[in-house]
Parts: sequence; structure tokens; C-alpha cells
Amino acid sequence: MFYNLIKKSEFDKVKSHGGDWAKRMKLFADMCRYNTLVAVKKAGSGHLGSSLSAMDIVTYLYLNELNVLEVGLNSPDRDIYFSSKGHDVPGLYSLFYALGILPEEKLLMLRRLHGLDGHPEVRQPGIEASTGSLGMGISKAKGMAWAKTYNRNKGNVYVLTGDGEFQEGQIWESLQATAHQKVNNVTAIMDHNKYQTDMLVADVNNIEDVVTKVSAFGWYVVRINGHDFNELKKTFDTLKKVSDTPKMIIADTIKGKGVSFMEKPLTETFQGRTLYKWHSGAPDDESYTKGLNELSESINKLAQELGIDKIEIPENKTEGKVATKLDKEFVTDAYGEALVELAKTNKKFVVLDGDLSADCKLRNFEKTYPDRFIENGIAEQDMVSMAGGLARMGLIPIVNTFASFLAARANEQIYNNAGEKTKIIYTCHFAGMIPAGPGKSHQSVRDISLFGALPNVTIIQPCNAQETKWATDYCINVAEENCVLRLVIGPSPERIQLPEDYKFKVGVGAQLTEGNDAILFGYGPVMLHEALVAADYLKKIRFGLKVVNMPWLNKIDLNWLKDIVKDQKRIFVLEDHSAIGGLGDRLLNALKEINELDGKEFTNFGLREYPECGTPLEVLEYHQLDGKSLAKRISGVKDIETAEAVKQKYTADAPQ
Amino acid sequence: MFYNLIKKSEFDKVKSHGGDWAKRMKLFADMCRYNTLVAVKKAGSGHLGSSLSAMDIVTYLYLNELNVLEVGLNSPDRDIYFSSKGHDVPGLYSLFYALGILPEEKLLMLRRLHGLDGHPEVRQPGIEASTGSLGMGISKAKGMAWAKTYNRNKGNVYVLTGDGEFQEGQIWESLQATAHQKVNNVTAIMDHNKYQTDMLVADVNNIEDVVTKVSAFGWYVVRINGHDFNELKKTFDTLKKVSDTPKMIIADTIKGKGVSFMEKPLTETFQGRTLYKWHSGAPDDESYTKGLNELSESINKLAQELGIDKIEIPENKTEGKVATKLDKEFVTDAYGEALVELAKTNKKFVVLDGDLSADCKLRNFEKTYPDRFIENGIAEQDMVSMAGGLARMGLIPIVNTFASFLAARANEQIYNNAGEKTKIIYTCHFAGMIPAGPGKSHQSVRDISLFGALPNVTIIQPCNAQETKWATDYCINVAEENCVLRLVIGPSPERIQLPEDYKFKVGVGAQLTEGNDAILFGYGPVMLHEALVAADYLKKIRFGLKVVNMPWLNKIDLNWLKDIVKDQKRIFVLEDHSAIGGLGDRLLNALKEINELDGKEFTNFGLREYPECGTPLEVLEYHQLDGKSLAKRISGVKDIETAEAVKQKYTADAPQ
Repeated sequence: MFYNLIKKSEFDKVKSHGGDWAKRMKLFADMCRYNTLVAVKKAGSGHLGSSLSAMDIVTYLYLNELNVLEVGLNSPDRDIYFSSKGHDVPGLYSLFYALGILPEEKLLMLRRLHGLDGHPEVRQPGIEASTGSLGMGISKAKGMAWAKTYNRNKGNVYVLTGDGEFQEGQIWESLQATAHQKVNNVTAIMDHNKYQTDMLVADVNNIEDVVTKVSAFGWYVVRINGHDFNELKKTFDTLKKVSDTPKMIIADTIKGKGVSFMEKPLTETFQGRTLYKWHSGAPDDESYTKGLNELSESINKLAQELGIDKIEIPENKTEGKVATKLDKEFVTDAYGEALVELAKTNKKFVVLDGDLSADCKLRNFEKTYPDRFIENGIAEQDMVSMAGGLARMGLIPIVNTFASFLAARANEQIYNNAGEKTKIIYTCHFAGMIPAGPGKSHQSVRDISLFGALPNVTIIQPCNAQETKWATDYCINVAEENCVLRLVIGPSPERIQLPEDYKFKVGVGAQLTEGNDAILFGYGPVMLHEALVAADYLKKIRFGLKVVNMPWLNKIDLNWLKDIVKDQKRIFVLEDHSAIGGLGDRLLNALKEINELDGKEFTNFGLREYPECGTPLEVLEYHQLDGKSLAKRISGVKDIETAEAVKQKYTADAPQ
Repeated sequence: MFYNLIKKSEFDKVKSHGGDWAKRMKLFADMCRYNTLVAVKKAGSGHLGSSLSAMDIVTYLYLNELNVLEVGLNSPDRDIYFSSKGHDVPGLYSLFYALGILPEEKLLMLRRLHGLDGHPEVRQPGIEASTGSLGMGISKAKGMAWAKTYNRNKGNVYVLTGDGEFQEGQIWESLQATAHQKVNNVTAIMDHNKYQTDMLVADVNNIEDVVTKVSAFGWYVVRINGHDFNELKKTFDTLKKVSDTPKMIIADTIKGKGVSFMEKPLTETFQGRTLYKWHSGAPDDESYTKGLNELSESINKLAQELGIDKIEIPENKTEGKVATKLDKEFVTDAYGEALVELAKTNKKFVVLDGDLSADCKLRNFEKTYPDRFIENGIAEQDMVSMAGGLARMGLIPIVNTFASFLAARANEQIYNNAGEKTKIIYTCHFAGMIPAGPGKSHQSVRDISLFGALPNVTIIQPCNAQETKWATDYCINVAEENCVLRLVIGPSPERIQLPEDYKFKVGVGAQLTEGNDAILFGYGPVMLHEALVAADYLKKIRFGLKVVNMPWLNKIDLNWLKDIVKDQKRIFVLEDHSAIGGLGDRLLNALKEINELDGKEFTNFGLREYPECGTPLEVLEYHQLDGKSLAKRISGVKDIETAEAVKQKYTADAPQ
């Protein structure tokens, strides 16, 4: 299996060639599409649909409107472009490569450590804004444009948005304020490809008629075909003459543009609603090959029509393996099953979703109990306050979306609801730092701290399918206050084995291994797996590590704690979270309260920096949170993996 | 000075009397206005402008549309009304009193402990939703209406909004989603009184043409005169026939309606913009008397026209004292001065405001540096992301609004900005639990925890004017990462005296008193005052309390800490914040790290419940955080204030 890109020299050839301008643009864009497909396939994940739909727009902009290549990426007088939705960044990277902004090896390091982030990050030259959570872009563009005026710098500001993104309230805040503040040097372009995640925007939470809406907010709005280069050119030329309002182009595009089968929805539907498959994730081998072939054909044809000798299209090969379903446990699966099961006996709970139903494994519930399912679109604040209203009427709302978006975006709404002393369940999906490919907009390592200071909330993170079902049941049927259910979204690296006699009880964890040299508290399948790997390593040097699963992140049974730490001199906490405001802080307080800290070591392995982007192992190793690193940090033995180390007797006062 | 209300019996008289219906409504509303004025004057604060502008609408609703008085406040089939903006709640309370929902003594306990909350709270019978932070109401109403359908309950849902509130993005999220989800049993009413805080909405961040905007979002919209009872009736009758969309009434009203001088803006303007005086705060004695007289006249006139014998209007007297300017220190004053001063030498910083310029003491900066001041309206998310854009262009944005709104509402935007590794200063005004009159939507006791897990932020709370200037200078000119400046908004109970040799240095606090029996770490003028009062009490029983001002809430110089705690056996932390995620957690970690915990007591006096509403002393006492309670909690001596206690020798092991 090998991955090869169409070389930069081929792009230069197209750029410098004469002939029909629009055709050359199309050729250039299709070549970028080809490279995008290769990069995403190699990464194993990434957003193809948006990358392809926005490709013509960004190609047009960088080759025709923006001065960045002339004045330099860091010139204060440069034109600025960035994508607010950020999904389309693989496409932008491939364009950056074609323009010489990115070296070849970087493009083949998409979503890898020290490679390219899964969502835009400003540390990458050419990226003007870090994005990945929706709705912030126009506000940021406004700040940039305002600063340009204040600093007396030249340059225009262009921001690309999604269409689903127009469900975020901040978009409307920014539209209103930009017009009022007369920051007219902003041009927003909507990549209106009609699908958000895997369904039609029109089905999820319709934004139409968006031209009327945006116009009502005082913007100059035009709606065009976002794949027609001549229309793009004409439009941008016209907009240059509009200087008394900010400007918005609604560009009708096709998600997956350029690859026939990615342009089409699935024939299968969900409850009468259209489904789309290519929002995120890498294509299977067959689709990949087919996609490359289609693009090659188009490239060859266009080159021929333009009279370009030949575009060198490299060979790309797959392993030809048939995709097999991953035989791993997902705690989210167990959660989805539990909801369906529990709904039979408890009629009071209803489920809310913020456009992530499939990822959050809610589709089965949605299908089984359509009258108890509320799809709210990408409008977390509205979803959370709606849940507040539902709860005030005696229902138990279960709010679902990614932890980053739920805990942070809707934080004040959560506080407001909690103050009403109703019960709401906030299910924080994609909690923790793994998977690390999407980057830090998606990795949630602050959510415990964001809920922590609410006086009436219980925060739980289960470690396996069984515990997830117990936790879901507890939240719905037992808890009397608000609950946060923190769930890892990816596959569990192993199925964590709980003791046979373990009972899921408030504040009480479960001992997973024996050991008296140190105790390590952890939670969730990802980090407990690393803890168990560490314990295995340590066993080799006769170091006994007691690993404890502690699913109760802010409720600790002091008697249980006293008992479990009583013979331990060295206490460690392994967070899937920042070291600030997670389980560690609560454990430290509890240990002090029960007087079990004196003469003991206490170390919190939580993050003290931003989570890195990369594969799980790359990122865990980077943060020294993989099992091997943990074993070294706990024992102080640096060459723990070598035979020498195994022989070496552990000394309790080894440097750490 | 005494406060008397128009009795409920007088309202009953009007209700049961025949004659012109609209005139009776007007009379009833004016009588409520009278009582509102009395209640707010007694409370010493409250929102008069909105209470008066919305009075006719709520009077109309409760007397004509809502079934709550018939079916009961807790009936699942009741109609629901609540105010999303919440400012108007003194007016609603006075209506509740007139309708027998509230007893007389409660209405005279506005903003007092165990009385009536400064913003709506559901613990008060008849209040359907806790509000006070803007923009959540339509979402909540949607949840309630959805639940009514699901539960097969009867009743309509009405929600009142402000106009300035339409700058909040959540409003547009909720408008879009309510229409899409076809939750048509929602009627929103905008109390369109044209002013937000002290300026015209049209000047701050124009929402017009709001009819066009809301219509574009798929709502049925009408615009009417909100003081014309006949028009109100006609409109609600018409809207009953509209069942295929949610409905919105834009009710043009006059802020301060019913009291001539409160209906008018000030003759004075600010940079050509109209100023309004009566948004919040109690009237001075003269205005109060004049207002009551005007309302009495109107009441008498209407009663006469209706042929009602006489409405008993009680006597109300003021002390006739001339209002004097409070001779207290405000840290916000020092902050405002510092900004103006520092702007002379640092051209890079710009100041952003979220419609609280006067409260945040920014007016002088705004006037002196209009080109460096950005008024963003009530759109915190947009403001914060705009700051992100400004910072990316090399400026230092200083973002201002109340801590509750800034830290919680824009939390994800703050995270996104911080990830770009630029420098932004977030000034969190109204930090902590005092003043406690506005209630928990405004009291900010979670903000430290909401910023705490960001890896690149320094959180500072200065204790007096001088330290505020140092801190502001530090943030602007020295700090290399993001800063949070946490400021108390009210007057400092005393001017905290810092040691003469004190140097403002990262991680280093200042010892304010001598003492070796215990050490107490505190911050900010409010809680340090209580700490000093506690130290004074303790001195009487020969208990030496070392009070330390620790303005660095998440940065601790370990050498300094080791030195200051070395002879101390008992360590206390006095938070103006929740016990979770504040200074206490950081100190505990630091003390463990430097091995200064063994054999020592550690107690965190932070809040473990929601902050109460009331006067400062009432609330501090309620939470046992006033100086006297603290002295008792620290020493274990219960009768510390009596002569006996003074004589009694303190014993170190006294129960705590």
C-alpha cells in the first residue's frame, strides 16, 4: 500500500499554461481533489465531503483574489482567508501543497503527530484561524477586519462557512453586529452543500430562506453556483464595488463534488430522510480506487482539452483488504442500547441531539421512539435551554452532543437549568483526548472542570459496556440531581474487566489489579487500558500497582477511599482530562479530609498543556500517558522495557 | 421612612367593577406600578424601567389570557408565562401580589434574604423559569410547549423577551429551531421599549428591522402598541387562530411607562447618543415621591372616570435625605482609570464591551479613545471571537462584561482563542457573590473554575485600587499569556491596606495581619474585609490569624508559599467562589507539592451551594462567610462576641 501525490510541478504547469481560464481552474481543483483523497485515505479519517464541495471556491480565491502568495503569509497587508467550519481543511491543505505553502511530506501526515491537524490550527503556516467548533468564523473575521482598519493595513478578509453552521446562534450575533459596526471589509462565503453530517440541513433544522434571513440582517447577499468559476469571478468583481455593508455569497455546491458517487446521497434513507455517507471518515479501498480513477479521468480529459501535454498522475495502491467490522467494544453502543431498553419502563425521559445522532449511537432510539427524540441541529444553547423547559414540565431530558461543545458552548444555559433544581442528564460524548485525530477543538479535556462547580451535579465516566448500562440506568432512574455521563467515543482498546462482585454504587470505585507499591486511580476505557498496561510492565520489575477504576468523578465515598488507600504510600491519578479541575483535585481534597495524605506521595498525571493531534498511541506517548511511559513515571525506572530492567529490583525511592 | 402598598382589596375592587374594560386594565396596571415603585425603593435596587414598560402586557395576560388563577399554579394544564429578560420581575411581583399569589410582606422583601429574588427564580410560586441572563427564554418556552404536547396537557406558553436581548445569538437559534420543529404553541412577546441598559438598542447594536428578521425565521409576527389594551386583546384573539407557526408580538412600549420623567431620556447625551437613567437602581427620594404622586393622580383620575368610589392609596414617606456620593473605594474605578492612563503609552490594546460600559467603568475610556473602543452589545460569543480575530492581527483585546456572562456564555470561544496562543485579557466584572441582590444569575462563583483548565491563562483578583492598577498594567504590558482580571463590582467595604514594601509579583501574595494560630488566604476586597473582621474578633480571644491577600488565583510561587505557611498548623482558604475549582484547589495542590501539608489542617471556606440573594451582610451571614462566622469557624469558639468568650482562652483543639 503506498500513497503518492500529484506533484507540485504538475500544478505549476497548469498555472502557467494558457487557454480557457475556467477550465484551468477546474483542472487545478480536480488535481487538488485527487491529492485530498490520497491524504485522507492515508490519514484513515478526515472530512471528504466538505473538502470536495469547497474546493472550487478556495481554488478560485487563492489563484485569483488573495494576495498572500505575492506579499507573503505573514505580511500585515495580506488578504485573509479561513474556514469557519474547518471540515474542509484537507482540501485546503492539498491546495496549500499545490501552491508551495506546504511540503509534500506534511500533506501525507494529515492527522498525525507533528503533521497536519484534523481541524485548522494557526500553528500551520497559512492557516489564519483555529477552527473546528462551529459558528465562530464571522466574529473572528470581523475582529481581523476591524484590526486591519485600526492598524491601517491593506487586505480583505474572507471567511468560508458551512450551511449547517447557520444553526449556531453566534452566526446571527455576528451578522447583526458586523452590520451594525459597519465592519464592511468582510466577505463571508457559504459552502452551501446542503448536508450537515449525514442528513440534509433542510431535514435537521432548516435554515432557508437563508438569503432573506441574511439580507434582513443588513448584509449584501448574492446566491450563486459555487462550482462555476466564471460566476465566482463575476460575483467577486461585483462585490468589490459594495463597500457600505458586509457581503455574503451563498454558494450552492455539491457535497463530495468531483467524485460521482460521493455527490449522491445513499439510496437507503432514515425515516424518510435522505442520508449522506461521505461527511467524514476515509473511504474504503474500493471507493478510494474508484474515486482516484474518476478524478484521473477528469484530469486527463481537461488537460487534453487545454492542450496540456500530460499531467503526471502517480500510482496509488491499496492493500485490497476487505473492510471488516471492528470487533471492539464501544461504550457508546452500550449507551444507545441502554436508552432503548430503559425507555420501555420509564416514559418520562426524552432524548435530545445536536446533529450527532449516529456518532452518539442514538439512531436506534430515534427509530424506536420517534416521539421521544428531539433533533435540535447544531444549536447547543437552544438544545440545553429547551431541555430546561422540558425538565420544568416534569420530563427527564437527556442531552447529547460532543463534550467540548456541550460543556463549553452551553455552559451558562447548563448553570441556569441547574439552578432550577430539575434533573437533566448531559451525555458528553467524545470525552477525553482520544481519538486525537480531529484535534483540540474536539478533544475534551476541560469538561469535568466546566461542570465541577455546579452544586447539584454528579459526573460519571463508565469504563466498559456493562458499567455504561449501569450508569445510564443510575442517571435515569436513581439520581435525584443533574448527571453528566462522560463517554469515550472510540473503540475501547480492551474490554476492561470489572471484579465479579463489583456493585455500581455512588462514590465507590473498583479495584482492577492487586499491588501495594502504588495505587493509581483512573477512569474510562482509554486511560484504564493504559493503566493496566503500566501495571503489566511494572509487574516485570516486581512493582505492584493497584489500578482502581473510579467512575465517580466528583463524588467520593470517604470510607471506601480510606479503605482502598490505607496501605498505600504512593498515590497516582490518571486523568483523561486536564490536571486542573478533574478527578485528581477531588481526590486530593478527599484524602486530606480523611487524613490519608500525611507521609504519602500524590501525583496527578492530568494534562497541563493542550492535547496533541495524532494517532492514539502517538498522542498518548507524546503526553507520556501511554502504559509504558506511565510505568516509568510511576516506578522511576527508565529502561523498564529491557531485560535489565526486569531484573533490576525496584527501589521505593527511585527518582521519579 | 415607611413603605406601604396599595392593598390587595383595592385591586379586587377594580377587578370586580364594571365599566370600560381597557380603562380598568389601565387602572389595575397603574396600581401595580405604584406598588412596584414602593418595592424597588425599599429594596434599594431593582429594574424599574422594564417593570413599568411591561406592566400593561403582563396585566393584560394574567387578567385575560392565562388560566393559572382558575386551574392553579401547579396544574399541568395551566397556561405558562415567564419573562426571558427577567428585569421586569419587580413589576410581575407587584402583579402577583395584586392577584393574591404573593403575600404583602414578601413584596416588601424584594432582594432580601428569604424574600424575593432580584431576578426570577422558580422557587417563588408563580415563577415558571429562572432567568436573569439573556436569550434563553424562547428555547425554554419551546421545551415547555413540547412537553405539553408530549404529556397531552393543555395550556399555552407565553414568553416575554426584551429587545436588547435580540442581540444574543441563542434567540436566533431558538427562533429557527422552534419554527423547524413546529412547536407552534409558543407565543413570544417582545417588550420593545427601545433601551437596553442606558442606551438605545438602535445605537448599541441595532436589531431592526426585527419584524422582517423574525418573519424570515418562519414566525408569524405582528407589531403593536404594547400599552393599548384593546390592541393587545385584538392581537391575542387573532393569534389564537394561527396554529401552523410559532407567533411573535413585537409590542412597542415606553421604558418607564406611567411616570412622566422615567419615560424620557436624559437631556444629557454621550457622544451624541441618547442616555436613559431608569434601567436599574432605586430612585432618589425626590423622584420617588414625584413618581408616586404622578401614579396616585392617574389612579384617582381613572377611578373617578370608572365611577369607582375611591382607591385607598397609602401614605409613603421618605427620610428626605439628600443623596450623597458614597465615599467608598471601587476597584472598577481604578481599573477604568488605569485603562485610560495605560492607553497613552501602549497603542496596541483595544477595549470591548458587552452593553455594560457604565457598570464596568469604561465610559471615560470610551470618551477618550473612541477609536479603540468596541461596543458589541449583548453578544458575548461574538465579542469574544471578535477579540480572537483582533488578537490574531497583533492587538491586545480587553474584553469586558459581567463574569457570569463572560466566563460561561463564551466559554468555548475563550478556549478556541486561547488555543491560538494569542494574548487576550478577559475582565470579569461582578465577580463573586456580592452584591447579592441581583441573584444567582449575576453572582459569579464559578468563573475561576471555568478558566482554570486552560493551560495558558493567568487569573488575578486585586484587592484594592492600587493593586487593581498594578494588575491592569501587568495584564497589558507584562503578561505573555491570556489574563483574567476578576473584579468586584460594588464598593469595597473598606480600603484594604497592603504592606508598604509589597511588590506585585507573579504568584506572590501579601500578608495583611500577623498571627501564628492559623493562616487564612483570601482575595478581593469583599472577602478580605471579612477576613480582617474575623482577625479582629479572634484577637479578642488572643487567637492570632495571619490574613494573606493572594491575588494570583492559579499561579503560586512555591518558595513564597513555603515561607508563609512554615510555622502554621492550620490553613484556611476564603473563596469568593465555589469551593470547587477556585484558589483552594490550587493551594492544596501546591502545599502537597512542597510537602507542607503533613500534620496540618486545611479547610476551604468556598461555597458548596448556590449563592443566596439578599443584602451583602444577610448573604455573607447565611453562608457563614461574614467576619464573625469566620472567626467562630476558625477558632471553634461559638460565643466569640460575648465578654465571656474574650476571656476564654483559646484552645488549639477546640471543635470546629
